[in-house]
Amino acid sequence: MTNTSPLHAPDGNRLTVLDPDRLFPADPDTRDRARALHERVAELPIISPHGHVDPRILLDDAAFADPTSLFLTFDHYVTRLLHADGADLALFGVGAGGPADPRAAWIAFADRWHLFAGTASGYWLRHEWASLFGLTDELSPASADAFYDRIASRIADADFRPRALLDQFRIEVLATTDDPLDDLEVHRALATDPAVSARILPTFRPDAYLDPEAAGFRERLERLAAATGRSADDPQGYLASLRERRAHFIANGAVSADHGVREPFTVALDRDEFAALHRDALAGRLDAQGARLFRGAMLLEMGRMSADDGLVMTIHPGVHRNHSSATFDRFGPDSGHDIPIAVEYTANLRPLLDEIGLRPDVHIVAFSIDETVYSRELAPLAGFYPALYVGAPWWFLDAPDAALRVRAAVTETAGFSRGSGFIDDTRAFLSIPARHDMSRRVDSAFLARLVIEGRLTMADAERIIVEITDAQPREVFKL
Amino acid sequence: MTNTSPLHAPDGNRLTVLDPDRLFPADPDTRDRARALHERVAELPIISPHGHVDPRILLDDAAFADPTSLFLTFDHYVTRLLHADGADLALFGVGAGGPADPRAAWIAFADRWHLFAGTASGYWLRHEWASLFGLTDELSPASADAFYDRIASRIADADFRPRALLDQFRIEVLATTDDPLDDLEVHRALATDPAVSARILPTFRPDAYLDPEAAGFRERLERLAAATGRSADDPQGYLASLRERRAHFIANGAVSADHGVREPFTVALDRDEFAALHRDALAGRLDAQGARLFRGAMLLEMGRMSADDGLVMTIHPGVHRNHSSATFDRFGPDSGHDIPIAVEYTANLRPLLDEIGLRPDVHIVAFSIDETVYSRELAPLAGFYPALYVGAPWWFLDAPDAALRVRAAVTETAGFSRGSGFIDDTRAFLSIPARHDMSRRVDSAFLARLVIEGRLTMADAERIIVEITDAQPREVFKL
Amino acid sequence: MTNTSPLHAPDGNRLTVLDPDRLFPADPDTRDRARALHERVAELPIISPHGHVDPRILLDDAAFADPTSLFLTFDHYVTRLLHADGADLALFGVGAGGPADPRAAWIAFADRWHLFAGTASGYWLRHEWASLFGLTDELSPASADAFYDRIASRIADADFRPRALLDQFRIEVLATTDDPLDDLEVHRALATDPAVSARILPTFRPDAYLDPEAAGFRERLERLAAATGRSADDPQGYLASLRERRAHFIANGAVSADHGVREPFTVALDRDEFAALHRDALAGRLDAQGARLFRGAMLLEMGRMSADDGLVMTIHPGVHRNHSSATFDRFGPDSGHDIPIAVEYTANLRPLLDEIGLRPDVHIVAFSIDETVYSRELAPLAGFYPALYVGAPWWFLDAPDAALRVRAAVTETAGFSRGSGFIDDTRAFLSIPARHDMSRRVDSAFLARLVIEGRLTMADAERIIVEITDAQPREVFKL
Repeated sequence: MTNTSPLHAPDGNRLTVLDPDRLFPADPDTRDRARALHERVAELPIISPHGHVDPRILLDDAAFADPTSLFLTFDHYVTRLLHADGADLALFGVGAGGPADPRAAWIAFADRWHLFAGTASGYWLRHEWASLFGLTDELSPASADAFYDRIASRIADADFRPRALLDQFRIEVLATTDDPLDDLEVHRALATDPAVSARILPTFRPDAYLDPEAAGFRERLERLAAATGRSADDPQGYLASLRERRAHFIANGAVSADHGVREPFTVALDRDEFAALHRDALAGRLDAQGARLFRGAMLLEMGRMSADDGLVMTIHPGVHRNHSSATFDRFGPDSGHDIPIAVEYTANLRPLLDEIGLRPDVHIVAFSIDETVYSRELAPLAGFYPALYVGAPWWFLDAPDAALRVRAAVTETAGFSRGSGFIDDTRAFLSIPARHDMSRRVDSAFLARLVIEGRLTMADAERIIVEITDAQPREVFKL
Repeated sequence: MTNTSPLHAPDGNRLTVLDPDRLFPADPDTRDRARALHERVAELPIISPHGHVDPRILLDDAAFADPTSLFLTFDHYVTRLLHADGADLALFGVGAGGPADPRAAWIAFADRWHLFAGTASGYWLRHEWASLFGLTDELSPASADAFYDRIASRIADADFRPRALLDQFRIEVLATTDDPLDDLEVHRALATDPAVSARILPTFRPDAYLDPEAAGFRERLERLAAATGRSADDPQGYLASLRERRAHFIANGAVSADHGVREPFTVALDRDEFAALHRDALAGRLDAQGARLFRGAMLLEMGRMSADDGLVMTIHPGVHRNHSSATFDRFGPDSGHDIPIAVEYTANLRPLLDEIGLRPDVHIVAFSIDETVYSRELAPLAGFYPALYVGAPWWFLDAPDAALRVRAAVTETAGFSRGSGFIDDTRAFLSIPARHDMSRRVDSAFLARLVIEGRLTMADAERIIVEITDAQPREVFKL
Repeated sequence: MTNTSPLHAPDGNRLTVLDPDRLFPADPDTRDRARALHERVAELPIISPHGHVDPRILLDDAAFADPTSLFLTFDHYVTRLLHADGADLALFGVGAGGPADPRAAWIAFADRWHLFAGTASGYWLRHEWASLFGLTDELSPASADAFYDRIASRIADADFRPRALLDQFRIEVLATTDDPLDDLEVHRALATDPAVSARILPTFRPDAYLDPEAAGFRERLERLAAATGRSADDPQGYLASLRERRAHFIANGAVSADHGVREPFTVALDRDEFAALHRDALAGRLDAQGARLFRGAMLLEMGRMSADDGLVMTIHPGVHRNHSSATFDRFGPDSGHDIPIAVEYTANLRPLLDEIGLRPDVHIVAFSIDETVYSRELAPLAGFYPALYVGAPWWFLDAPDAALRVRAAVTETAGFSRGSGFIDDTRAFLSIPARHDMSRRVDSAFLARLVIEGRLTMADAERIIVEITDAQPREVFKL
């Protein structure tokens, strides 16, 4: 079959975006195995236990505004590369909620579409245009208007509303990311709406309440205290307030708490040490070392709370947020210049794992954009501690080659059972099926290679592809 | 031949564990070359210049006790993954010398055998069961008893005693790892026993005598001093005692001294500086920086002694030992929670290499579990300093994909001549042939690819596969 | 065609050095695509915007002296591996401008030629000998004299002079690396010589004038001040002098300024802080932290000057220069013991990028020998900042497997448009075509794989291979 697949057609210039063999290895035998494995999971429902889709779009269920705000404005993977090529982010409505002239922005994007050749974003976008809009030609200045019109027309259809897509995409679970003080009324409304069959779950994300160096820290702690009927000055009350908000999230369906820290540093302090840090933090008197201790103590506290209340603890470290001051001033956060840094897990997590790492009922998922930690630290750690799981390749590593590298780096030490299952972590709602399909294809390709190399039976591979696609995320995220 | 090999049979579900083409790449031409290369070294004797087999099992030559203690109890690669899945290490007799109920432990292991799919440990175990016991079915709850009975029956046979296996495995050299105060009577007995044809060599491993932060440091130095008729308080006497014990090891066949340090930091101190550190170390007064200086000075001293007495200096850095306090308290060391950390070689080794790095008669072998140092530091260093060799991929990197990555990272800079040859570094005696065979297959696969890519002639590859398998370890370890 | 190529001939032992399919992947379909892509760029002119060829050899246009000084003496990639094997660098004339007995040195080299199997240097040398001298046999002790004689005879020919080779190699641009006080008369002479059609461009390399810890720093600043009619004691005059020298370089064709720093640390200081550092630097009173601040401030100043005068800023960090003291004392710099260290870009470049990173007219090219920064830092940074480009894999990474790894690490995040184009960075003039051909083959292989995996149309790949080979270096280096 391989030799008759479009990828191997004599005319390699026709678009291969939905070729059934895409992302599979070249070797025909391996490709056959990969295809057979992928077929077992291609139609399985999507479990998305961590991401950034705004739940309000599902509550409102309004038509998407226009192609540009749908595909570009909020996708900083895309706008960042346009920006690197000299485009003004303002054109695409970044930081302004949407573009002033969506069609002009789309045409400017089409002018620069060649930048995305070979990128993960380019792969997803082509997948989305082909599968959702039948657009299998290449986007170009010549085809820009036709693309725009086709997309604009389709998104006006009643069956292209977010809820309809939720069903069409076979999304069974979709987690959002939410502020601890969020009332979660949107989630409650969705949960009680019989027309929404997918579970839309909130995620407790307390970063800004745990970092004394975050802007508005004191005000945030005062709001937290007020919301829970306490004084901001009481360190134990601060912890109690966080516990209460977690309980509120759990009552509204949350299964995990997420921590976007600079480093996964944890430290156990005694009550007095912490009280002193807390007092200085509120007074704005902490130096850098004090602030680090405070964050480390609070990350450990979050682990303790997870051990108590059962929320899965996810950790996303190693990002220098808002790297470009001028861009941040003009466009705000999430405008494309969060840049990874090196991460250290072994020493940083030790206090946390010493307290709760041996408990199989505790689930901690450690993510990384620093590839070096997968074989060196994460696979060895997750291959010992029952509580620790290796997060799916994250952010810039959520791409075919990188995901294959991560599988190879983790599997020989930790096997397939210590991973989190795939996490799309996206705010681009329409890209969810493309991302999950990519992951399933990459895993199929990886397993097929092991079979061909005599390291796995095909029967094992057939079992594993289903487990890592479907069972693993359900189990790790307690779904 | 490739298309008729079991790996390519239409029914991929039958067990492929001893497929002659295992670990070879999928491409038929490359696979043919890899097979041809492997055939040249498949039957060569095993040189194992660094490992952790207990020499007493060869002296006693008793039958192995039971399948569980043979395969599980002492193999922390295996027990760690069972533990991560929630199993209690006590079940497998970890830290207790063996299991209370070996069959029950084996059945519990069989229940979790699926965890090992895709892991290096799983590959070795399947290889061992198939090649030594004819067990080519898959281990499962259903087959657990049959596996247990077959293994238990076979290990009772006279020709399955350690010495018989030593011959059957074609082990020519087997190095153990020993305490500096070991009398080495076991090694002497083995050396003079005409029934033991393999060379069983001790290795000088002084870590606990060089680290002021190790438990019982002062007592250890007192025992060392007493054993050599000196006072523990004399810093030059301390060095002299170590020199004497090395001489004792050399007299009993040792060819190398091994150093399991946290970081490969070396530093040259003058006599007075060292005397002051030594005094404070014995008094338990060293702070963290002082302890680091002491260790760095002693690692340099070990290098100086190697330059004098000819022992090959091996360095195994970058491991956070006994990461889980509770597990260490309950099960002791080597119970599966030694976790890698990042390593720096370029600056750390400079004082050592400045003193002895240009001497071709000095041999230093630098190992790493941190993959990042291979292309960045180790290949460049070993590609210049005659004294320095790149250790074979170690511990969690001793696996097919990782070993291929390390070959690719090292070869383009340093070629094939600057490696140590394969090191199994195992305490799992029965896994030694599987590990060496794996390494020979991976090297064959790597060389075959270079041939197919026009970067090496087949004649060169045929020469190199023999050299790196056989000549290199003999030369590097002065055998 | 693949199956009839020499690489697949039944007799794999014949030399494959100029096989048309070299460096292409084994899979026949992928190989066909790679070959087709390579054919599009195989004959394109060579753009070499950064390197270390001595321009005087082009001015003098004398015959090369002898095979040994041509191929070995100045190529520390080669001499380092001979040295690691125990050869004395003096034999090859390292640090002495050439060997005392070139033929004896050549024969010693032939004795050790096997060391280069699988290395990048070995690949280039074989390519050069085959393509320039018709020497397709393997170098060996038996063939050493024949090789020597053939090369010696050929380099005496009039059409083997440097200028003739410049034309034969189709070199269109060749940048050298020059001291800021260089008068550049050689470059002027070459620019005005109608017989030299290639552009031979100087590169401003001020390292030694920016590092207070460099030997002779004060003297160098005094010479700089004298050359520009200023006092060395004026910090603003120091900057002005550097600006003037850059202008002199620009007037003589320079397009870039190169910075070989230990770390790419940048820092913005106010005028008084810098003046104090400058005063202490001249007085030799700076401590390590002060010297680091001085270097960081000056790297930022160089960026500011590039933003003003348009010179492309290239940064080559992460090398511990002259690692072996004894070798440095005996043979001087560039004698093979510059060893990489880990590099950090995200935090270090932030002050620089905050000032000038958003300007598309500013071009900064960041190189690395530390592979870990490509996916973690460089691709994310260059995928956002218009001013920043990812340098081609450098030094020890300038090799087939490493270059493929770097492409895979960068492309999924930053695509193909954010790279520098290939940089040979060599002082080995004869290796330039081999290096550029290697890079074009590796890029063809990478693109072919993406096509076969359905991630790129063949039409896109055909466009991209030409762009990254030809357009990208012209654009990034403002040629």
